[in-house]
Amino acid sequence: MLRIIPLGGMSVTKNMFVYETESELLLVDCGIGFPDESMYGVDLLIPDVTYVQNSGKNIVGMLLTHGHDDHIAGLPYILPKLPDFPIFASRLTAGFAAERMKEYALNRKINIFDDERGIRLGGFEIESIKVPHSVPDDRHFVIRSRGTNVYHGADFKFDFTPLDGVRPDVQKIARLGARGISVLLSDCLRSEKSGFSQSESSLGESFEKEIRSAKGKVIVTTMSSNVHRIQQAITIAASAQRRIALFGRSVEVNAQVAQELGFLKLPSQAMINKKKIKNFPDNKLCLIVAGSQGQEGSALVRIAQDEHKEIQIKPDDKVIFSADPIPGNERAVYETIDALAHLGAEVIYHDINDELHVSGHASSGDLMLLMELVKPKYLVPIGGTYRHMVQYRKLAVQMGYRQENVFLLEDGQSIELDAGGQARIGSSIPLKNILVDGLGIGDVGKIVLRDRQVMAEEGMLVVIVPIDEQNGQIAGEVEIISRGVVFMKESQALIDKMKKEVLISLKGMKTPVKEWRTAKERIKTNLEKLVNKELERFPLIIPIIIRM
Amino acid sequence: MLRIIPLGGMSVTKNMFVYETESELLLVDCGIGFPDESMYGVDLLIPDVTYVQNSGKNIVGMLLTHGHDDHIAGLPYILPKLPDFPIFASRLTAGFAAERMKEYALNRKINIFDDERGIRLGGFEIESIKVPHSVPDDRHFVIRSRGTNVYHGADFKFDFTPLDGVRPDVQKIARLGARGISVLLSDCLRSEKSGFSQSESSLGESFEKEIRSAKGKVIVTTMSSNVHRIQQAITIAASAQRRIALFGRSVEVNAQVAQELGFLKLPSQAMINKKKIKNFPDNKLCLIVAGSQGQEGSALVRIAQDEHKEIQIKPDDKVIFSADPIPGNERAVYETIDALAHLGAEVIYHDINDELHVSGHASSGDLMLLMELVKPKYLVPIGGTYRHMVQYRKLAVQMGYRQENVFLLEDGQSIELDAGGQARIGSSIPLKNILVDGLGIGDVGKIVLRDRQVMAEEGMLVVIVPIDEQNGQIAGEVEIISRGVVFMKESQALIDKMKKEVLISLKGMKTPVKEWRTAKERIKTNLEKLVNKELERFPLIIPIIIRM
Repeated sequence: MLRIIPLGGMSVTKNMFVYETESELLLVDCGIGFPDESMYGVDLLIPDVTYVQNSGKNIVGMLLTHGHDDHIAGLPYILPKLPDFPIFASRLTAGFAAERMKEYALNRKINIFDDERGIRLGGFEIESIKVPHSVPDDRHFVIRSRGTNVYHGADFKFDFTPLDGVRPDVQKIARLGARGISVLLSDCLRSEKSGFSQSESSLGESFEKEIRSAKGKVIVTTMSSNVHRIQQAITIAASAQRRIALFGRSVEVNAQVAQELGFLKLPSQAMINKKKIKNFPDNKLCLIVAGSQGQEGSALVRIAQDEHKEIQIKPDDKVIFSADPIPGNERAVYETIDALAHLGAEVIYHDINDELHVSGHASSGDLMLLMELVKPKYLVPIGGTYRHMVQYRKLAVQMGYRQENVFLLEDGQSIELDAGGQARIGSSIPLKNILVDGLGIGDVGKIVLRDRQVMAEEGMLVVIVPIDEQNGQIAGEVEIISRGVVFMKESQALIDKMKKEVLISLKGMKTPVKEWRTAKERIKTNLEKLVNKELERFPLIIPIIIRM
Repeated sequence: MLRIIPLGGMSVTKNMFVYETESELLLVDCGIGFPDESMYGVDLLIPDVTYVQNSGKNIVGMLLTHGHDDHIAGLPYILPKLPDFPIFASRLTAGFAAERMKEYALNRKINIFDDERGIRLGGFEIESIKVPHSVPDDRHFVIRSRGTNVYHGADFKFDFTPLDGVRPDVQKIARLGARGISVLLSDCLRSEKSGFSQSESSLGESFEKEIRSAKGKVIVTTMSSNVHRIQQAITIAASAQRRIALFGRSVEVNAQVAQELGFLKLPSQAMINKKKIKNFPDNKLCLIVAGSQGQEGSALVRIAQDEHKEIQIKPDDKVIFSADPIPGNERAVYETIDALAHLGAEVIYHDINDELHVSGHASSGDLMLLMELVKPKYLVPIGGTYRHMVQYRKLAVQMGYRQENVFLLEDGQSIELDAGGQARIGSSIPLKNILVDGLGIGDVGKIVLRDRQVMAEEGMLVVIVPIDEQNGQIAGEVEIISRGVVFMKESQALIDKMKKEVLISLKGMKTPVKEWRTAKERIKTNLEKLVNKELERFPLIIPIIIRM
C-alpha cells in the first residue's frame, strides 16, 4: 500500500506532501502559504503536520523540489515539531533553505541529491530529474515504493534554452516513464494557457533595448528568487557600461547565496556597494531592487514614496517591472507604478511591454508533453486552484485519459495505490489552518479572526456598566466607548439613546442582576438592534459589567 | 476667463467637473468613487462640493455624460447640498439617474439633450455628440463660453459596428473641431493598449458558440449597466430556443429601465419570470445574473455558495463571465470561479476565452483619432490614473504635441483659459475625501479609519482601571479585555504581566492620580511597549479609568 496525502499545495501555496506506507513516511516540500484578506494581521500559514506527528511511523526523510518560499519556507516552523530525519535538495535549493532556517537560528544539515545514482530513504527509492523553473536548480522526482512508481512533478516548464544551459532532462523522464508510472502529480497553475511557456532567454532582446535606451539610472525589479532574471539584467547592464548595485534584503541574500553556489555570475568590475552609487552618474547605474509586488516596506515601495535613503527618482530614470502582479497584489503594484510615475520616472510594466517577464510554470503544451513522456495510469494536478485542476483534467481527456482517472484532490484528501499500482481516492485526514502571526505560531484562532473582521468593517463599541453587586442596581454612569464607529463629539444624541437602552435592557431582568452573562447578552442584543436601526451598521459590541 | 476644475475623475472614478466663469458654474457628471482597502467599512466616496457651495456664483446647470455609477450615482448625495438647477442627460442616462435618485426618494427632473440644436445654460452653449461606450447613449460635449471651446470627451470608444447602430458621430466631431477647440479633455484609461478597441459586435460569434454548445443551463454574468452585452446574450439565447430570466437587483432594474426606453429588446415569448425557471428543463434556460465582479451578496456569489433560492448548479451547467475583473477584484472573481467549478459547472472566463468581453474604453488608436478630429491646442487626459495619463501624453507627443501642452492634473487642480483660448495650470482648490458609510455621509473621518485599521491588523486591548477618585489609589481589580489579539484562556501569564504594568505605570505618577488623561497615556504607552516586546504586535490599546 502507498498513500499520497497533500498537507498543502491544493491551492497553489503551502506545499507539503506525505508519501505513506505501512511503516514509513516520506515528506516532499515544506512551504508556507499566504493569508487572504479575511485573515486580518496574519503573516503566513504553515501546513498542519499533526497527522505526521501522531502517525507513529518512521519519517525516513524529506525531499525539497525547489527554492521558492511556498515549498521551503515552512522549514523553521515545522522541523522543530518533528523528530530528526535526513533532508535532501539540490544545491541551490539547499542554500536557500539554509538561509530561511538561519533567520530562526535553526541549523539542520541539508544533503545534496545524487542526480546520477538516485537516493534511497527507508523503503523509498528516489530518482531526481532536472527541470527549469523561475528559480534555478529545480527537480522532479520519481518515487518508487515496492514496485510502484509515482512521478512528483511540482513547478516547472520545458524551457529548452534556459539561461544556465541546464535543459529539462526529457531523456531521463522518458526512460523512467518507460518503466511504468502509476501516478503523475503535475504542476497545473498555467493549464489555462495554450501552447508552450516562453523561454527565459526570450526576454534578452527586450531587456537590452530598455536598458540601452535609458537616459538616467535604470531600476530593475523582479521576484528576488528569480536568479536568472537578475542574471540577465546584470549581464546586459554590465555590457552597457553600467555599474550595478543590489537593494533589498531578499534580493541581496538570494544573490549572495546563488553567487556562492555558482548560480549567479556577478561581474566584479561592474558590481558596486550600494553606499557608493552617489559616486557614479545616473546614466552609469543599474539598480536591482526588491519589491516587484508592491510589498509594503520593500526597497521599491520606499523609493516610490521618496523615502529611500540612497535612491531618489529623477525624471530621466527608468523603472522596469520584470514580474507580473500575483493575483491579489494588483492594487499594490499599480499604486507603486503610479507613485514612481509621479516622481517622474519612466515606468515599464506588463501592460505597456509584455516582453519583460515570462512565467516559470508549464502551459498546456508543456503539461501535455510531460503526460506523454511519463505516460502514467493516473493523473493528479497539484499546485493550482480548483479551476486550474479542471482545465488540467480537460487537457488529460484530450490526451485520451478517462476523466475518472484524473483525481482532483483537496488538502488532506489521499490517494491510495495498491500493490499492482491501481489508484483510488482514499480517506481524508482532518487539517487545521495553522496561522502564524508575529512571534506566535497557531495562536490566532477563528474567533480572533472573526472579531478582527467585524472590527475592521464595522468598528467597535465598549459599553461599561457599573452594577452594585449587592442589589443588582446600576451604580453609576453607563460609559460608552466607540472605536471606528462614529465620532464621539458629534454623536451625543445617539450615545444617550444607547445609554437609555442599557438601562431598559437591565430593567427587564429579575432584580438583583446577578446573571452577569445574561445581562451582557441582553445589552449586546438590544444595542445591536438600536445601532443597526440608527446607523445601518453592525459594530462589535463588548459589554463590560463592573461589579461594585 | 474660463476655469475647469476636476472635483474628481483624476483617478478613474468619482467623476465631477466644474466649468467656471466670473459669475457662473456649469457642472459635468456627479459620480461616486470606490474605497480602497485602507478605508475599512466605507461604502463609497463622493466628490467634495464645498467649493461649489461657497462660490457665491450661479450654478447654471449640470450635464451627465453617461449612465455609469462613477458618473451619476453621486446625485442623491450631492443634489440635496446644492441649490436647484437644471440637469441634462441623454434618455438612457436620465433613466438610470432617476433610478439612482429614487432609491433615496429624491425626485428631480432630468431634461433630455437636444442633440440637434444643442442647449444653452447661462453663458454656456453646449453641443452633445453621440459616442459608443459599454453603456448605451453616451455623449461627448463641446462646451463654449465667450468664444472659447472645450471638448469634454469622457469615457468612449470608436466602435463603428455598435450593437444599436448608433455610430460615433465623427462628422460632427470634425465639424466642431474645425471651429477651433482650445482644450480636449479625453478618456485615457486604456492609453496603454495599442491599436483600436474592439467592437462590441465582435463578441457575437463566441457567445453563439458557447451558448449553443452548452448541455445544461447557461448562466451569463456581466456588468449590469452593459445593456448591449445583455442584449447579445438574450438574442442568442432566444434564437437557441432557450427561455431567459434575469437575476439580481441591478440587472433587473437596469434591464427594466433600458427596455422601457427602447434600449433593450426583450423577446417576450422567450422571457420568463424567475420563479418559473423550475418549469423548464435546464437545456432550455439562459439566466442573466448579476455579480460578475464576485460582489459579496450578489446573485452569482450566492449561486456559487450554493445558497441561492431558485438556482442550483448541476454538472452540465455553463457559467459565462462576460466581464474582466476590475483591478482589485481579482481575488473575489477567482474565488467565485473556483466555487462554481467545485459545484461542477463549466466556467468560461477571460483566461480561457478572451473573446467574451471587450472594453468600452478607447485604446491608443481611438485616442489618436479623437485628437486628430478635435485638433485642440491643449490636452487633458481624464478618467485614468497617473500612469494612464503619462501614456496618453506619450501618444500626444507622437502626434506632434509639445509635452508642456498636455496637462496632467490632480483632483482640485484647475486649468485656466484666457479670452484668446490660451490655457495654463491654474490654482488648486482644497478637497476632502468624503466617505459614505451606511446611512451617514461624511461622518467617517481619518481617526475612525486609523482605529479600524489598527484593530483589523493587530486587534485591540481594553484595559479597565478602577481608581478611587478621592485618593487616586487603585480601587479594585484591573481588567483586561482582548479582541483579536490572543485567546484569553491561554494567555493568563501575559495578562498578569500587563496588569502589573498598569500598576507600575500609575505608581510612577504623583498621588493622587487625578490627571486622568496623563494616566491613560502612560498606561497606553507602557502596555504598547510590553505587548510589542512579548508578542511583536501593536494592538489598539484603550485604557478606561473608572472613577469610584
